[in-house]
Amino acid sequence: MRAELVSVGTELLLGEITDTNATYISQQLADIGVDVYFRHTVGDNLGRIVQVLQGAMRRCDVIIICGGLGPTQDDLTREAVAEVTGRPLQRVPAAEQRVREFFAQRRRVPSESNLKQCMVPKGGRLLDNNCGTAPGLLVEHNDTVLIAVPGPPPEMRTMLDSDVLPYLRDHVAAAEGGVLFTRTLRLSDIGESTVADELADIISQQTDPTIALYASPAEVRIRLATKATDEAAAYQRLSKVEEQIRARLGSHIYGVDDETMPVAVGNALREAGKTLAIAESCTGGLIASRITDIPGASDYFLAGYVVYSNAAKTRLLGVSEEVIAQYGAVSEECAKAMAEGARRDSGADYALATTGIAGPTGGTPEKPVGTIFIAVADDKGTICEHFCWPGEREQFKARVAQMALNVLRKRIVGE
Amino acid sequence: MRAELVSVGTELLLGEITDTNATYISQQLADIGVDVYFRHTVGDNLGRIVQVLQGAMRRCDVIIICGGLGPTQDDLTREAVAEVTGRPLQRVPAAEQRVREFFAQRRRVPSESNLKQCMVPKGGRLLDNNCGTAPGLLVEHNDTVLIAVPGPPPEMRTMLDSDVLPYLRDHVAAAEGGVLFTRTLRLSDIGESTVADELADIISQQTDPTIALYASPAEVRIRLATKATDEAAAYQRLSKVEEQIRARLGSHIYGVDDETMPVAVGNALREAGKTLAIAESCTGGLIASRITDIPGASDYFLAGYVVYSNAAKTRLLGVSEEVIAQYGAVSEECAKAMAEGARRDSGADYALATTGIAGPTGGTPEKPVGTIFIAVADDKGTICEHFCWPGEREQFKARVAQMALNVLRKRIVGE
Repeated sequence: MRAELVSVGTELLLGEITDTNATYISQQLADIGVDVYFRHTVGDNLGRIVQVLQGAMRRCDVIIICGGLGPTQDDLTREAVAEVTGRPLQRVPAAEQRVREFFAQRRRVPSESNLKQCMVPKGGRLLDNNCGTAPGLLVEHNDTVLIAVPGPPPEMRTMLDSDVLPYLRDHVAAAEGGVLFTRTLRLSDIGESTVADELADIISQQTDPTIALYASPAEVRIRLATKATDEAAAYQRLSKVEEQIRARLGSHIYGVDDETMPVAVGNALREAGKTLAIAESCTGGLIASRITDIPGASDYFLAGYVVYSNAAKTRLLGVSEEVIAQYGAVSEECAKAMAEGARRDSGADYALATTGIAGPTGGTPEKPVGTIFIAVADDKGTICEHFCWPGEREQFKARVAQMALNVLRKRIVGE
Repeated sequence: MRAELVSVGTELLLGEITDTNATYISQQLADIGVDVYFRHTVGDNLGRIVQVLQGAMRRCDVIIICGGLGPTQDDLTREAVAEVTGRPLQRVPAAEQRVREFFAQRRRVPSESNLKQCMVPKGGRLLDNNCGTAPGLLVEHNDTVLIAVPGPPPEMRTMLDSDVLPYLRDHVAAAEGGVLFTRTLRLSDIGESTVADELADIISQQTDPTIALYASPAEVRIRLATKATDEAAAYQRLSKVEEQIRARLGSHIYGVDDETMPVAVGNALREAGKTLAIAESCTGGLIASRITDIPGASDYFLAGYVVYSNAAKTRLLGVSEEVIAQYGAVSEECAKAMAEGARRDSGADYALATTGIAGPTGGTPEKPVGTIFIAVADDKGTICEHFCWPGEREQFKARVAQMALNVLRKRIVGE
C-alpha cells in the first residue's frame, strides 16, 4: 500500500519548527508495512494544499495530512479535503453537541470558528481528539483514503496510535493479505559497514523477513520485517533470523525494539537492584538528562555532577589537584578519580564519569579535539575506556553520551 | 523569488532520521527573502526524484536538493539533475585531479564510483565541499536554478553558508532590486497572543518592515524584515520599528537575533564577571547541558548538581531532611535550599535550582503534574518563582529549562 504525507503549516516552510511529526508518522507507517513514497510540506494556503492533495490522489492509496485542523482562518485542511473530494462540509451533530456542552460549562457560547471543527466532508467521519480540541478526519474517496490529524505532536500521536494505525493495519491486511511485523535489534561497539560485512551472506540470501540496517550516533540498528496474517507465525520467522544474527553479533546486541540505551541501562540497574551517580565534564549534563527522560528513573538514579571546571572536579568530587596538574583534566586518571569521587559522595553503587575535549578549541597534538575518557567505578574497582571521535559540539556530546552509557551497561551486566 | 526544497533519502521516508536539514535550509532562505512554497521528500529512486524535480521546475525559480550526492549506487541526485535538464554529465578535470591526488597520497586508485563525484551536468558547476568528499552542484537551466548539497548536516551547512546563500543573495538582489534584512527580537514572560494584542495596531499598519510572530517553549520571537539594496537604510528602517516595539514590550525583550537564552545568560554572567552553579531535580541535567552547548561556557559555569532523589538533595546540597519532610521536595523551601546549597558547595556567585513534577505520575491535587519551583541564590539572598505548566515529559523539561534560565537572567541583570 502506497502512502504520501502532507505536512501543513507556514511555520514549517519558514524553518521555525522541525517537522518531527513527519518522522513519527513515517516510522509508524513503516512499522505496519505502509510504504511512504513521498512527503510534502505546504503552507497555510488553500490553493496550494489542494494542489498537493490532487497530485497525491493521482499516485497513492493513503494520504495522511498533518496540521491545519484548528479553529482559525489559517486552518484550511478541512476545506482542502472537501474541495479535492468534491464533498461538501457537513456538521456532525454529536460533535457539535460536545462542543456546545464544553462551552456551556464555561458559561460561553461557541463561535462559528469553534463549530467549524465539528464539520466533516460528506460521507467522511471525525476522529476523536482525546488531548486537544481539534478532531481528525477520515474520508474514503474512490480508491484513496484521506486522513487528517492535528499538528500538536501529543494530539497527533494519540490520534495516530488509537485510531489511524489500527484502521490502516486492517486496511493493509485486507488489501495485501497480511500486516507487517518487525523486530529491531540495537547494537553498540560496532560500525554499520562491519555489520553489513558480517551479515553479507545472510542479508543477500534473505527475502522474508527482510533485513535493513540503520545507523545513529554510536548505534547500529538491524530491522527485521515480515508480512503475515498470523502473529505467531510472523514472530517465529523473525526469531529464526534473529537467532542467526545473534550467533554472529550477539555480544553487540544490547536492546530490542524500543529498548534504547538509557532504557537498557535503567533496566540493568533495576534488575541488579543497584543505584547510579554520574559525573560529567564534556557532556555537560546531557547523560543525566537522557537518563531522566525515562519515567521512573528516580528508582535508580541518585545524583549527577556537572563538573565543568577543574575547581569543581576538586571541590565536588575530591579529584586531587595533583592528578589534574600531572595528567590533565582530560586523562584516564582524572576520569577515574571523578567516578570514584561521585560514587563516594553520592553513595551510589555505580558511578559513571566523562571527561574530554568537545571543541572547537582546546585540542593539543597529544589530546586532539574529540578525545574522551569514560570511567566507571563500582565495588569491584574502577575501569576507564578511551576514544577519539571528533565532531560538531552537539554531535560529539550525543555520541559520547551513548558510548558512556554503553560502557556503564556492559559493566553492570558483566560483559 | 520562489523556491522548493527536495530532500532525498529513503531513510527519511522510513522515519529513521528527522529532516533537520530542511529546517535549516528553510530558515536560511527565509532570512535572505527567498520564499519556500513547497518542500518534498523522496527516496533513493531515480524515477521518483526526476518526477519531483519536473514538478518543481514548472512552479519555481530555485530548487535546492539535499542528499543523494555520495559515491554509491543509491546516490542518484546527480543523474536526476542531468536527466531533468537534458544536460549530460561531464567530468570536471580539476575535481578529478583533486580526487586522484587524495587517493594517491593513500597509495590507492580511485574507483569509478569515486570519480562519479567529479561529474556535473554540462554547463553547471561543482561546489567545493570543505568538510567531506561529495561536492555540490549548481546548474542554471532556462529560468530555474538547480542546486544540490550533500546530506550530512555539517557538510550541507558549510556549503550553504559559504557558497549557496551568497549566490542566492546576489540572485535575489538582481531579480528583486534588493535583499532581505531581518532582526529578530526574543521575548520571555509573555505569550504569543498577548504580544499580538499589544502590537495589533503596529502590525496592522506596518507593511515595510514586515512583522511576524513565532512561538517556541517559553519564548516568543518577533521577526522584522525589509528588502533593500542599502544595508544602512535597511537597518535604519528595522531600528525604527524595533524602537516602537521596545517602547511597549521592552521589558520582555531579552535577546536579539542569535542570542538565545543560554547565550543571553552567558553574556550576562561574563559582563558581570560572575560564576554560576545549577541544581536540578525535575530538569535532570538539561539546563546544565544547554549552558554547556555554548562554546566558552567554562568561563562562567562552575558546577551542576542533578539531585533527583531526596537523599541526594540532602547529601550533595545539604537540604535538611526537615524541609523535605515538612514542605516536600517540590516546594519553595526545597528549591531555595537547593540553590543555597549549590552556591555554598560550588563557591559560585549565582546558583539556579529547579524542582517540580514532570509527570506522567507523581501529581497531587495541591501540586499537580506540571508544578515547578525555580530558585536563584546570590549574595543578595534567595528568590523563588512558582509556575504550573503541564506537558509531555520532554516538552516540560524544555520549557522549564528556558523559564529557569530567564529567572536567573533577570536576577543577574537586575530586572
